[in-house]
Amino acid sequence: MPSVIVVGASGYAGAIAASILWRHPHFELVAITAREDAGRPLTDLYPHHRVPLTLEQFDADRGADAAVVAYPHGSAAPTVAALLERGVRVVDLSADFRLRDVATYERWYVPHPHPELVPRAVYGLTELYRDRIAGADLVACPGCFPTAAILALAPLAGLVADVVIDAKTGVSGAGKAPTETTHFVAVDENVRPYGVAGHRHMPEIDQELGALGAPVPIAFVPHLVPLDQGELLSCYVTPKVALGQQDLDRLYAERYADEPFIDLVARPPGVRDVRETNICAIHVHADERTGKLLVFAAIDNLWKGTSSQAVANLNVMFGLDEREGLR
Amino acid sequence: MPSVIVVGASGYAGAIAASILWRHPHFELVAITAREDAGRPLTDLYPHHRVPLTLEQFDADRGADAAVVAYPHGSAAPTVAALLERGVRVVDLSADFRLRDVATYERWYVPHPHPELVPRAVYGLTELYRDRIAGADLVACPGCFPTAAILALAPLAGLVADVVIDAKTGVSGAGKAPTETTHFVAVDENVRPYGVAGHRHMPEIDQELGALGAPVPIAFVPHLVPLDQGELLSCYVTPKVALGQQDLDRLYAERYADEPFIDLVARPPGVRDVRETNICAIHVHADERTGKLLVFAAIDNLWKGTSSQAVANLNVMFGLDEREGLR
Amino acid sequence: MPSVIVVGASGYAGAIAASILWRHPHFELVAITAREDAGRPLTDLYPHHRVPLTLEQFDADRGADAAVVAYPHGSAAPTVAALLERGVRVVDLSADFRLRDVATYERWYVPHPHPELVPRAVYGLTELYRDRIAGADLVACPGCFPTAAILALAPLAGLVADVVIDAKTGVSGAGKAPTETTHFVAVDENVRPYGVAGHRHMPEIDQELGALGAPVPIAFVPHLVPLDQGELLSCYVTPKVALGQQDLDRLYAERYADEPFIDLVARPPGVRDVRETNICAIHVHADERTGKLLVFAAIDNLWKGTSSQAVANLNVMFGLDEREGLR
Amino acid sequence: MPSVIVVGASGYAGAIAASILWRHPHFELVAITAREDAGRPLTDLYPHHRVPLTLEQFDADRGADAAVVAYPHGSAAPTVAALLERGVRVVDLSADFRLRDVATYERWYVPHPHPELVPRAVYGLTELYRDRIAGADLVACPGCFPTAAILALAPLAGLVADVVIDAKTGVSGAGKAPTETTHFVAVDENVRPYGVAGHRHMPEIDQELGALGAPVPIAFVPHLVPLDQGELLSCYVTPKVALGQQDLDRLYAERYADEPFIDLVARPPGVRDVRETNICAIHVHADERTGKLLVFAAIDNLWKGTSSQAVANLNVMFGLDEREGLR
Repeated sequence: MPSVIVVGASGYAGAIAASILWRHPHFELVAITAREDAGRPLTDLYPHHRVPLTLEQFDADRGADAAVVAYPHGSAAPTVAALLERGVRVVDLSADFRLRDVATYERWYVPHPHPELVPRAVYGLTELYRDRIAGADLVACPGCFPTAAILALAPLAGLVADVVIDAKTGVSGAGKAPTETTHFVAVDENVRPYGVAGHRHMPEIDQELGALGAPVPIAFVPHLVPLDQGELLSCYVTPKVALGQQDLDRLYAERYADEPFIDLVARPPGVRDVRETNICAIHVHADERTGKLLVFAAIDNLWKGTSSQAVANLNVMFGLDEREGLR
Repeated sequence: MPSVIVVGASGYAGAIAASILWRHPHFELVAITAREDAGRPLTDLYPHHRVPLTLEQFDADRGADAAVVAYPHGSAAPTVAALLERGVRVVDLSADFRLRDVATYERWYVPHPHPELVPRAVYGLTELYRDRIAGADLVACPGCFPTAAILALAPLAGLVADVVIDAKTGVSGAGKAPTETTHFVAVDENVRPYGVAGHRHMPEIDQELGALGAPVPIAFVPHLVPLDQGELLSCYVTPKVALGQQDLDRLYAERYADEPFIDLVARPPGVRDVRETNICAIHVHADERTGKLLVFAAIDNLWKGTSSQAVANLNVMFGLDEREGLR
Repeated sequence: MPSVIVVGASGYAGAIAASILWRHPHFELVAITAREDAGRPLTDLYPHHRVPLTLEQFDADRGADAAVVAYPHGSAAPTVAALLERGVRVVDLSADFRLRDVATYERWYVPHPHPELVPRAVYGLTELYRDRIAGADLVACPGCFPTAAILALAPLAGLVADVVIDAKTGVSGAGKAPTETTHFVAVDENVRPYGVAGHRHMPEIDQELGALGAPVPIAFVPHLVPLDQGELLSCYVTPKVALGQQDLDRLYAERYADEPFIDLVARPPGVRDVRETNICAIHVHADERTGKLLVFAAIDNLWKGTSSQAVANLNVMFGLDEREGLR
Repeated sequence: MPSVIVVGASGYAGAIAASILWRHPHFELVAITAREDAGRPLTDLYPHHRVPLTLEQFDADRGADAAVVAYPHGSAAPTVAALLERGVRVVDLSADFRLRDVATYERWYVPHPHPELVPRAVYGLTELYRDRIAGADLVACPGCFPTAAILALAPLAGLVADVVIDAKTGVSGAGKAPTETTHFVAVDENVRPYGVAGHRHMPEIDQELGALGAPVPIAFVPHLVPLDQGELLSCYVTPKVALGQQDLDRLYAERYADEPFIDLVARPPGVRDVRETNICAIHVHADERTGKLLVFAAIDNLWKGTSSQAVANLNVMFGLDEREGLR
């Protein structure tokens, strides 16, 4: 049974990864680490996860077959480098290895600490890159918005003349740090756009949807809504050629025929439908009034958008059924 | 001091209209009526409005200078007709007199009970039709989504090549009747699109934005978010010609220079910012990445989107300062 | 592998029972039934439970080893009777067999359809009646408030001079039917007491705590708070003799030493800590200022308070590890 | 028209005080101040208050007839001292002058910066100390929990053998600073007790209820619920002598006969009923089952519990109708 550690398990994403791996039938979770919270039982921070382990200081020399790294961008890369050097296969949740173009990364984030590792990374959208993930030792898990955006639009590859993506997300996406933005009173009874002038997931969406033939850059605006976990993307597509409902249905059904974690649903999904699952629920509607194609995709930003997708990737990397531990 | 009655004051919108008029310095609220709840003090239903009146049965012969009618579509028209016949000037909150084309009305609603009155009605978007409202005896208050959509886009009249409107609304928009949709457990921790295949505010948006030169029909999708009052519209405009931020700012500043209830705001607004006000907060952003124009408009769906706009119209109809009772 | 049916799986509680049993390693869920919703896939009503079964009409003659009956009080008893007659062992979620005194039942509920079965029922609070549950063919699952109240106070049996129980509960406790009370707008931004003059869980709490030596009747007031699942009971105990923190800690530690589903926690629990678990988290505090003992108990009203407790009881009835399917 | 300043208007309470005074017909709000946020327009922080003033640095020498001081405890006293010295009459929102016993203050808070001023302060619960407030130059506004507790129980003065107070409060009571506790994700879908081992409002409740003859110390536990503004206190009273519903009703009706801001309500109040008002809604129930008296009091913690009560006190101090600016 392969051993795995979770590096940075005191944040929302790392803790959920730890929780899933703790119950995983084919991985042994041997350690969870944290920088500031080392020494505290994880149940202190997240009683409901019920993982009876204590957070440790990270030690690159502690042996393990695999690691999930849940550090912020910039901090992740050096840790990833240290792990790779010691032969540990890594799923990284940060943005550090998602963008294939280092200059683009540096424009949106920070100077890249390990640009030499970028070509080694596989973009960890399981449904698109499953084969390459299987052989990778560094998988860069997609951001939550790109995950939903790419899954929503991949079946339309080559058919898109224009697209607008309007996203609604719960507060956990902003992370655990208390800020003016995450204060209950700021969020409650509110809904507001943010990142209008530029959101870090934009270049990632452009990179992946551009590779699929969509015209980039793509208009994308996230909105904060008063809930904790969940993300809904509403995509308004102007197609290159007219497409009817049957065309749409067939395109999606074919593209996602064998996907265990894509639910093509008959009614527009709510984020509640996929809470705490690795599922992306997708509904497509050919709008006869306007000729536009409407695609709605719902995920749990902390699960499919981050941590459970990481575990699906680990499953693939270690030759397991992709669904292990995620049913 | 003109006397006014509120017909249908047991619903959310009628009750708020009653509450505003009860405190209005220049109208005398002489009666509030309800069908099922006649005989009950309004404080029974809405303690927080603190209007010490009792709901009565509607009596068209009870004299009054004006009436706010807050009945559902189909039920409103006969009541409006009875009031007009007796010389009462009416602000109607229903959809019955919003659509100038009766056939369109009948396609989306019901057979029209009083098509002969449709030409007599003025569309009650104060900012656009102030002059005609002043002389009207029948004002059809716009739907909440059209109110925000039209205010968001009116300054771009003639400049729009394509537009997508993504709306987020609180639950009060669905009315007071308990349904599967308004059950707390269905809404809580959820966000979901609805009316995807057709929402009744679509023809109204098309009618008004089409009149302003926008290409119709317009893609419009509302989403339900877990809050009670508030509505945010995110409009993604492809302009006919390139427009920069300065152009945009100037267009909006000029169009809304003297408007007491339009706030042009420097940051994308949240619906909290306009709660329980007659204000529409608008933020415009020329998106250099994509060339699109992003326009965000926030209103309180029950206030500016319904009841306070009704009072603003009453003010205009009776020659008062538009702001009376709404400061 | 014993077969089990869930009767009344279209409500919140029945659906969760079905969801747990569908994934249970040692029961086979052979049918789920509903009265009005027969014919609909359960995913139509509860997409997130992901139980791929279709609701059927109830048929007492369909064979099964066990049944979970999730009907309202009054409707449950005849169904339970029919099942028992056919040798099916039953866990009943209704109030029909909780109260040992039929007259008390009839004062709070309805004329009892099957009083002759009352003596046959075992009160299904697993932690207290495990031995008798093992041999029972009719187990009456406790109400959600009594579950938490009894677990909170059982270790103080015989030591209580007076007790006040103040409960806070989420909306799902009121069931799936849309009512004025469960409307989002009524609950949101609100907290209010209800059932002040009499709540149906009162006699049940009195029956069980009285049996443990507490002075009854007991002051108990539930409050509705804006969340979906979760229940917190704050118990204010005046002890017969002074008890310090160490006494308290020892009493609870001893009483609950081997309980898999009782968490004695060092800090006052929040309901989030036990969401979607069969756990009752308890915190005790000897208040030196006042001499009172404060006991806080948190459960998920739909899980430990209803459906997962039902499954724990099924486990016990069929000689399985109590934790099967509930980890 | 008396001039007034609000010192510390960048916090929730100060901002609301500023908002009420800005619209007050008989006070002129001449300045609002802040420590860190000086220089920012108040609309930057609180768009919805729509107060078009800019925060200034505090200057004790800026003349004014009155000041509302909204600083944290410890910081308030020196500012209050400076203002009093210059003849400015002060309503202080902090705890610095609420406790008549300096030793008690220092046990719960910090060393008192100005103990010599304590005897000069009048406890600003308008309903109890109206006469002394009229002549005061230093009024110490009560904490939010004491406000509701005292109003709930004052009519029972001398009749109480034992009392338990269980409070539920929204998040704004914790202030504007982002903390782990106020993070949306910590509060959402949660309800939890806090301050169990000691809350700073305890000595204040004891001081005031003790003065009214209640047996102190009093058991008091606050709970955090997922809403922004609002506070409900549930009081469980064991009376010295049996009291029936009619006795109770008479006691409360007499005590509060002429109070403009006490609503004796026939049904248990929800906090929504009093949102953004200076009203305390009270419901009393003589519980025949247990002999206990149940008293429920709902206030808006930021209004009646803090800022609007401050304005009511200012009205009293300056000989105005207590209701001015608060209708």
